[in-house]
Amino acid sequence: MAGIVVRDVARAPLEVVDGLGAAGVATVHEAQGRTGLMRSFMRPIYAGARVAGSAITISAPPGDNWMVHVAIEQLQPGDMLVLAPTSPCEDGYFGDLLATSAMARGCRGLVIEAGVRDVRDLTLMGFPVWSKAVSAQGTVKATLGSVNVPIVCAGAVVNPGDVVVADDDGVCVVPRAEAEAVLAKAQAREANEEEKRRRLAAGELGLDIYGMREELAARGLRYV
Amino acid sequence: MAGIVVRDVARAPLEVVDGLGAAGVATVHEAQGRTGLMRSFMRPIYAGARVAGSAITISAPPGDNWMVHVAIEQLQPGDMLVLAPTSPCEDGYFGDLLATSAMARGCRGLVIEAGVRDVRDLTLMGFPVWSKAVSAQGTVKATLGSVNVPIVCAGAVVNPGDVVVADDDGVCVVPRAEAEAVLAKAQAREANEEEKRRRLAAGELGLDIYGMREELAARGLRYV
Amino acid sequence: MAGIVVRDVARAPLEVVDGLGAAGVATVHEAQGRTGLMRSFMRPIYAGARVAGSAITISAPPGDNWMVHVAIEQLQPGDMLVLAPTSPCEDGYFGDLLATSAMARGCRGLVIEAGVRDVRDLTLMGFPVWSKAVSAQGTVKATLGSVNVPIVCAGAVVNPGDVVVADDDGVCVVPRAEAEAVLAKAQAREANEEEKRRRLAAGELGLDIYGMREELAARGLRYV
Amino acid sequence: MAGIVVRDVARAPLEVVDGLGAAGVATVHEAQGRTGLMRSFMRPIYAGARVAGSAITISAPPGDNWMVHVAIEQLQPGDMLVLAPTSPCEDGYFGDLLATSAMARGCRGLVIEAGVRDVRDLTLMGFPVWSKAVSAQGTVKATLGSVNVPIVCAGAVVNPGDVVVADDDGVCVVPRAEAEAVLAKAQAREANEEEKRRRLAAGELGLDIYGMREELAARGLRYV
Amino acid sequence: MAGIVVRDVARAPLEVVDGLGAAGVATVHEAQGRTGLMRSFMRPIYAGARVAGSAITISAPPGDNWMVHVAIEQLQPGDMLVLAPTSPCEDGYFGDLLATSAMARGCRGLVIEAGVRDVRDLTLMGFPVWSKAVSAQGTVKATLGSVNVPIVCAGAVVNPGDVVVADDDGVCVVPRAEAEAVLAKAQAREANEEEKRRRLAAGELGLDIYGMREELAARGLRYV
Amino acid sequence: MAGIVVRDVARAPLEVVDGLGAAGVATVHEAQGRTGLMRSFMRPIYAGARVAGSAITISAPPGDNWMVHVAIEQLQPGDMLVLAPTSPCEDGYFGDLLATSAMARGCRGLVIEAGVRDVRDLTLMGFPVWSKAVSAQGTVKATLGSVNVPIVCAGAVVNPGDVVVADDDGVCVVPRAEAEAVLAKAQAREANEEEKRRRLAAGELGLDIYGMREELAARGLRYV
Repeated sequence: MAGIVVRDVARAPLEVVDGLGAAGVATVHEAQGRTGLMRSFMRPIYAGARVAGSAITISAPPGDNWMVHVAIEQLQPGDMLVLAPTSPCEDGYFGDLLATSAMARGCRGLVIEAGVRDVRDLTLMGFPVWSKAVSAQGTVKATLGSVNVPIVCAGAVVNPGDVVVADDDGVCVVPRAEAEAVLAKAQAREANEEEKRRRLAAGELGLDIYGMREELAARGLRYV
Repeated sequence: MAGIVVRDVARAPLEVVDGLGAAGVATVHEAQGRTGLMRSFMRPIYAGARVAGSAITISAPPGDNWMVHVAIEQLQPGDMLVLAPTSPCEDGYFGDLLATSAMARGCRGLVIEAGVRDVRDLTLMGFPVWSKAVSAQGTVKATLGSVNVPIVCAGAVVNPGDVVVADDDGVCVVPRAEAEAVLAKAQAREANEEEKRRRLAAGELGLDIYGMREELAARGLRYV
Repeated sequence: MAGIVVRDVARAPLEVVDGLGAAGVATVHEAQGRTGLMRSFMRPIYAGARVAGSAITISAPPGDNWMVHVAIEQLQPGDMLVLAPTSPCEDGYFGDLLATSAMARGCRGLVIEAGVRDVRDLTLMGFPVWSKAVSAQGTVKATLGSVNVPIVCAGAVVNPGDVVVADDDGVCVVPRAEAEAVLAKAQAREANEEEKRRRLAAGELGLDIYGMREELAARGLRYV
Repeated sequence: MAGIVVRDVARAPLEVVDGLGAAGVATVHEAQGRTGLMRSFMRPIYAGARVAGSAITISAPPGDNWMVHVAIEQLQPGDMLVLAPTSPCEDGYFGDLLATSAMARGCRGLVIEAGVRDVRDLTLMGFPVWSKAVSAQGTVKATLGSVNVPIVCAGAVVNPGDVVVADDDGVCVVPRAEAEAVLAKAQAREANEEEKRRRLAAGELGLDIYGMREELAARGLRYV
Repeated sequence: MAGIVVRDVARAPLEVVDGLGAAGVATVHEAQGRTGLMRSFMRPIYAGARVAGSAITISAPPGDNWMVHVAIEQLQPGDMLVLAPTSPCEDGYFGDLLATSAMARGCRGLVIEAGVRDVRDLTLMGFPVWSKAVSAQGTVKATLGSVNVPIVCAGAVVNPGDVVVADDDGVCVVPRAEAEAVLAKAQAREANEEEKRRRLAAGELGLDIYGMREELAARGLRYV
Repeated sequence: MAGIVVRDVARAPLEVVDGLGAAGVATVHEAQGRTGLMRSFMRPIYAGARVAGSAITISAPPGDNWMVHVAIEQLQPGDMLVLAPTSPCEDGYFGDLLATSAMARGCRGLVIEAGVRDVRDLTLMGFPVWSKAVSAQGTVKATLGSVNVPIVCAGAVVNPGDVVVADDDGVCVVPRAEAEAVLAKAQAREANEEEKRRRLAAGELGLDIYGMREELAARGLRYV
């Protein structure tokens, strides 16, 4: 079943992708009904990055990064690489040379349920990576995988062209067909939060703003 | 057994709390006989914070942050929120809106054996959190827990009003009734360490300063 | 079998050690045939450090740091301490006082398959540590271990005098007798990478630079 | 997005399901190109069970087993329950009462990326379960999930009606539409293995049976 | 703070202890409001054991089993040993010789948040153990701990004399003062379950027995 | 560095190997000074096996079992296969066909810091395996490793020809040159334990048999 490269990937409009990136993972995750979040072991190699991109997906054998080279050719500006190994692996599939190549094609970052290396260089280059591990362990180029097929990465389904949003809170996947609707909800949510933030900062309680006191009493909450 | 909010919490004097915070986790932990330390998986969301506060405890169901809202009303300046889920959970119980509310009431930080989100915002706000995970995963408000009951958080017993000390080394709990005595020991320890640090920096060996050579020889240590 | 301190440790020339440090973990690991890497759970306490040193090895009982004091006397400028507990342990064997002492003797850092504490102080002192955990948990001084015997640390064999290279990518061990040869290969590798980096940055593809297309086709890769 | 129960689930023919069960996980996994395997932390509560069934899927909130009751009504003879929590959870969602009810409807077992309890009773009843944990921790019935929607369980996509095969080696998912073809391949594979097993038992080497010696030599394998 | 042995331990009546043992962990845990459960990593060394006993608690340093010998003298028939290390440890604190000694004094089993060894012998002797690990790693006798002080074991508070219930589902702690009341609730619960089990086996649905349909509809559950 | 097969492996006398197997892991581990034990995550696929054998070592790439076929040709009666992947991997490198082949050559079992599959068949065949995982995940045959080179397996150094002892307590490695001496110590230890077991069973306390009371008092143990 491996050995396939899908060239023709539909992507969401770049302004939708960028809007989702601006909203960030927590807001987007809420806006799409709390779905699409990758497992919390996916951590950024440096703090502060917040990006979104269209997924170029890679299904790779354990310890074999051949398909990353194949995937890079499929990149367009605004894309992100998303790699899931076919069995659990922490090897360092990706380093500064591959990042140099990916950046030259407009790639915005990498999401990988495995390891990454050269993290100091990647940090200096400003190429953000969310990974399961940091590991200098090298990989081979001996066995085929696939590019732009559906994968499960860190517990989330990723189809090629889906929008991947990543920041310090983790990584969230938005199905391409829902990207525009999710963006609208995310922006509505942000507008709504601004008002709440102002009231909470002024000392009002969530118990009052959200009207929780009655429901809590009805459930039997007792103050002693 | 859930569904209780204890309003009346005795706290240690703020100058004692602040003294413990200044001493830091490693010193306080030693000063109280190496007890009270939470498990090492409790990590700060950003480096460099060092705080102490009186514990407002939260026992919450997995994936349900309703009680956080209830707990915030119980906060006084100098307090810290300490949350343990009733079963293991990594969901993001707490984010920037709750932090805004907690800060408005003088809260110094959060210790949570679960997940936290909006960590970039929390970092910018200077609201420190020690957690088991960072996760954007949202929670519901459907089931009661309790506030200000004794909890076990990351392996340590926390009673409401206990002093919680947290820094880059982790989190340590000081029973309220022992806070003053522990502070005295911590300060004595620090004074003692200063002299040792000076001698060690000058090249003296711990083997000599602590007089270990004889005991080591008696146990049979051989130099070959 | 414990209770031995080997005083006479052959070391690699300091310029070789420094050269390996400059090359960094990923390059050195590749240069010596992808061997010697410690497990990826060994993480630096702060980002950005890159060092190499000659290993002074410590085999210590769980929760007992007596041998660290013994090992410090064996340090020479350019050395690194490498500690493996005799059974898995996360206690904080090492803190700022020991670091002060080690630095006074020219020690460049610590690699420990256990815990470390006072990490804020260690960071300010610029004393780098790669560890399995950060933990304030104190240790005792009750049972002998050994210094400068062969150990297995985080999955890698370390003999006293081996060169330990550590940076943000992890920790790699180079056998002393191979250090010079590995350095030569590492430097050749770096020279070679510079040219590749330039071509990749200009937009050439790895598929072409490395001539992979034919082999991929021969294996059956299909573009659809 | 939660709160949906799909009633109409297409299933594979029972003889296909049973054939896949007889072949077992390792064979089926190979037969479908090494896809569909759940993570290895999914372990049976007792050794020796080998079953296959059509998936009735459950997406449930952490610590909330309300949807299991809803799912049981959707069971038909030959089905298996497959539950994934919406965030990681180890609570005991399922015990002997639910098993009694499920068995009364012809259910063949449970696959759950969470916890199970009453495992002694379940063992005596002969109701097999593959789970992430065994935990007596009870759950609530407070929040909706969904039944018979696509889920990701232990890293594998499961659609309602897919064939789930489980034995001591783990759990493998076969998409319903491919079940018949995979069965044919699995049976061919088994037939082929029988001959190999006979030759290997007689002392022939895989190196010879599979003709590996030349390829190994070509790659540079050296006998010393 | 270590170095204390409390000799005078109040225990629950043996018939109450035995009653709780007969009810088992899942039932007892429910009966006391879902509290007192140890973490799910506490697993039995063999399947099928179900016991309860009064806790003789041990707080022991990592890798040091001296206090086990001290604790054995404090055992009375009907007791169980419960050991928590002062920092995480997997060493084999306990084997067949200690079990022989403990059984000679009427001990019913061991609960240990660490390792155990000689598990084949312990199995043949019928001495049940619930542990975090199985490990042949030996321990020393060099540092004091305490016996019969309050401990936190695998996330649960255990006071000396508390009733510890353990079976294939895990380990649950019942505070001594509540043992009788919890037993009454557990027995009521069991009586109630028998009727439900009969109805479920006959094909009735939990949805109907528990009257869940209306509440589910009210929350918005939709059948499609 | 990979791609080597060492044919000439010195082995310990079979009666020494068998003696060590009879003594078991815990006794052997103690007898050789508490060294050589593999990590506790190495678990048997079925309970009750106890074997020893001479190590035929395999260093294999992640997800690639080609070298297992090569290693089987090197087996002699009384040997055990010991496999360590070059980076962490849980794939199922070994199943019933390979076991059939290995048994035909007199192999006594497998120790593998990775995964194994067909565990039901292996159990029925009586071929014992100690592994890190059970996984049906298949492997490829694409990249060279080495056979009979020194490896680190689950934290322990294994040289070809070393004696590997394995039972329900785990796996311990005895260097070939020390095998005879370790056996003598193990047998002395067993003789000594028999007497202690008898006295402990009769109710004597370890505190008295080992004369611990004075030392405990000297350290400050207080009975209250």
